[in-house]
Amino acid sequence: MSESGNELSHLDAAGHARMVDVGDKAITAREAIARGRVIMQPATLSLIMSGGMPKGDVLAVARVAGIMAAKRTSELIPLCHLLNLSHASVTFTPDPAGNALEIEATVRCTGQTGVEMEALTAVSIAALTIYDMCKAVDKLMQIDGIRLIAKRGGRSGDWERPDPA
Amino acid sequence: MSESGNELSHLDAAGHARMVDVGDKAITAREAIARGRVIMQPATLSLIMSGGMPKGDVLAVARVAGIMAAKRTSELIPLCHLLNLSHASVTFTPDPAGNALEIEATVRCTGQTGVEMEALTAVSIAALTIYDMCKAVDKLMQIDGIRLIAKRGGRSGDWERPDPA
Amino acid sequence: MSESGNELSHLDAAGHARMVDVGDKAITAREAIARGRVIMQPATLSLIMSGGMPKGDVLAVARVAGIMAAKRTSELIPLCHLLNLSHASVTFTPDPAGNALEIEATVRCTGQTGVEMEALTAVSIAALTIYDMCKAVDKLMQIDGIRLIAKRGGRSGDWERPDPA
Amino acid sequence: MSESGNELSHLDAAGHARMVDVGDKAITAREAIARGRVIMQPATLSLIMSGGMPKGDVLAVARVAGIMAAKRTSELIPLCHLLNLSHASVTFTPDPAGNALEIEATVRCTGQTGVEMEALTAVSIAALTIYDMCKAVDKLMQIDGIRLIAKRGGRSGDWERPDPA
Amino acid sequence: MSESGNELSHLDAAGHARMVDVGDKAITAREAIARGRVIMQPATLSLIMSGGMPKGDVLAVARVAGIMAAKRTSELIPLCHLLNLSHASVTFTPDPAGNALEIEATVRCTGQTGVEMEALTAVSIAALTIYDMCKAVDKLMQIDGIRLIAKRGGRSGDWERPDPA
Amino acid sequence: MSESGNELSHLDAAGHARMVDVGDKAITAREAIARGRVIMQPATLSLIMSGGMPKGDVLAVARVAGIMAAKRTSELIPLCHLLNLSHASVTFTPDPAGNALEIEATVRCTGQTGVEMEALTAVSIAALTIYDMCKAVDKLMQIDGIRLIAKRGGRSGDWERPDPA
Repeated sequence: MSESGNELSHLDAAGHARMVDVGDKAITAREAIARGRVIMQPATLSLIMSGGMPKGDVLAVARVAGIMAAKRTSELIPLCHLLNLSHASVTFTPDPAGNALEIEATVRCTGQTGVEMEALTAVSIAALTIYDMCKAVDKLMQIDGIRLIAKRGGRSGDWERPDPA
Repeated sequence: MSESGNELSHLDAAGHARMVDVGDKAITAREAIARGRVIMQPATLSLIMSGGMPKGDVLAVARVAGIMAAKRTSELIPLCHLLNLSHASVTFTPDPAGNALEIEATVRCTGQTGVEMEALTAVSIAALTIYDMCKAVDKLMQIDGIRLIAKRGGRSGDWERPDPA
Repeated sequence: MSESGNELSHLDAAGHARMVDVGDKAITAREAIARGRVIMQPATLSLIMSGGMPKGDVLAVARVAGIMAAKRTSELIPLCHLLNLSHASVTFTPDPAGNALEIEATVRCTGQTGVEMEALTAVSIAALTIYDMCKAVDKLMQIDGIRLIAKRGGRSGDWERPDPA
Repeated sequence: MSESGNELSHLDAAGHARMVDVGDKAITAREAIARGRVIMQPATLSLIMSGGMPKGDVLAVARVAGIMAAKRTSELIPLCHLLNLSHASVTFTPDPAGNALEIEATVRCTGQTGVEMEALTAVSIAALTIYDMCKAVDKLMQIDGIRLIAKRGGRSGDWERPDPA
Repeated sequence: MSESGNELSHLDAAGHARMVDVGDKAITAREAIARGRVIMQPATLSLIMSGGMPKGDVLAVARVAGIMAAKRTSELIPLCHLLNLSHASVTFTPDPAGNALEIEATVRCTGQTGVEMEALTAVSIAALTIYDMCKAVDKLMQIDGIRLIAKRGGRSGDWERPDPA
Repeated sequence: MSESGNELSHLDAAGHARMVDVGDKAITAREAIARGRVIMQPATLSLIMSGGMPKGDVLAVARVAGIMAAKRTSELIPLCHLLNLSHASVTFTPDPAGNALEIEATVRCTGQTGVEMEALTAVSIAALTIYDMCKAVDKLMQIDGIRLIAKRGGRSGDWERPDPA
């Protein structure tokens, strides 16, 4: 962690929250990829996926929820800047060995600040939506591993998580 | 899983999503407690907590974000019913040994359906807010273990997670 | 039209808008069914439906959009009361002879005022979502026939449209 | 319909919904004009219009509702991009011969994607607001003919509906 | 101020914000009346009012904005409970002698907590809307005297401001 | 007031509300500073501030509420344009002599229209939040003096209130 990293930029010198001023940052193309998973009972995962195909609308509903939440991130996260996203997508991959449904979100914009929070919010709300649709049959589900996988653009340049899996 | 548990109630017979009809369910006092955690570097946790006391507004901002999100759960989770919450609170407990900040949300209402999703949403958005405020100094944070701990009220009665920790 | 029907209840004596006071109305179970349709080119309808089955997520996305909009009706229609919906569903029926996709929404609540606006809003936003997803291939689509089909509950009792089709 | 028009761009190759990437599209001035109408009983139209002048706030309320909804289109239509509108207006024209109130919305922005959905949403919500304010006296109203009349700007250039009336 | 009044009920024992638990409070009919004013130049007031009649839509727009904001109070004020308002109205009275436009909001609901914040929010947003529509001609406007005038219902009973004017 | 100032730009020639077209205005860096105050009993001010330090989360909650409201101004004020704020902050200063808590908001963006409404909205909602958290102990609070202090950028250039105090 660099010395300049010792400060939480969302707080002023008195420790008070503020929306950081990004007015002088360059406008660049930005992308963020985030992942997470919902751990569930094998029977629950089978209910969602049948022969590799989703049953009914479950994944479609969660996908829409994640995309819509990405667009509203700045309403939910108090110090986030509003960004006009140019792209958002959410994909699901069953992991029967891990008793999990993997979720990945990709978000892009051209702006003065990154879209990590938008990608992470999309994953989180997609996961909660899966949870909501399955909670009547599985009270032990757990949402895990919500994390940034990669980001591109911006002053700090490209970054990839050393241990993405 | 009971036989009646083989159906995802949020889908109709054709597999199409719908808001389940709760009009015939009893109006009872309900409570849900959910937990989750943000895994972070020790230096990040120290930045948030100093001598056991939070530094600046970090936790206060995350607490507000979680409470506000709980109230808006039905806007975020497509098939959730709108509920008039009678109480919502979010608490944080540092876990230095686990390199984590633990988050717990308690939500109550008197209504026809439970408040699990509201409690889980409060935890998720509080966690994302912590992430947002610390991401400039720690790109490796991860949100883990978002799960229901207990619920009270409703037809299915009280429930506690067998393995809450 | 009865004599008492000569007044627009959403305006006061001076013609100023207000949210009508429903505080003295009985709390009853209420239901509203609304319909509408999107007129489109045959090729567009074929893109959505293939062999009677929807292609991809088109209808699932529109269904979710309609349900979510129903819940937010009071934010969109200035003088509508907020209602806690107990049920909302949206269904689609292709009408190849009429070059149209038919949309029907059913909404229920237990409250002091009806859910007509919620059902009509669900149909309208579902129709606009269909439009949005198909507009790249069909600029001539048209949304038609948004109307109330039936309502149940409330002081004025049950009502069915004389000419529903 | 061109060959490239055979694809619904809001779906990926697997048929899954996504927010289309507009990051490479040119930023141009864009405008869209949409129309629709509310069919109503002659007595209802008379209640709204008296001697050519609107009675009370009815049209003012509907106008505001339409403009506000245009700004929130991306929250309502799941795959719409957020746009910073530079202009929005809604006008009403009584059509006594057609037992209808005609609604027209004009929306403009400078951005990477068009404002059709914003104009159509403004018309739809203005129509629903008229409906709401008059429904106590006229249960047979119907919203019809919501359609795009013209669009300007963007890669595909200017377009006018061949049969606008 | 009573001894029990020495505590800010929105904070727990540790000083942390929470949504107060109102689950045990009685459901009663409640009303709140709030007032405020916009101080402006005489010429600005004349632009709004002509011969005692409002010019154009200015007051109608502000009235709608106030009513809509009342319904969304719980989204804006972090610890406010969501309430289903049964009535909301906003009135304006020019005060030429005081170079002011007086605003009054009345809000009612049947619930477990009062509607003071909803009435005060309606006045505030109506005032800001007046400000917005007139700011191009008057940069010196000021919003003053936003206060509760009366409240009815609830455990503490009826209350009227000793100095309402 | 200049001659061109005799028109309310938010109304068209017929007096109908519209969102003014800002499409031809230059994109410049803009800033607005607004102030207001909450008048309260000395005991209430003491409850908030203890030895110059805020007690518990009161000011942190109000600060977050103000910042979040600034971002949503265009949803609340009907004819406001959506702006992507680059910075927002809210500060509080106790004024024991005046029995008041002073509130100041600073908002910045790079865009085609100013951020006065965003700064004024931040002050208003922060003030209402203070009111909400203290209303159980002080029913006589009053919100006063909400006004623009300075603005920078845009065609009309920099401006400072002649009498800011």
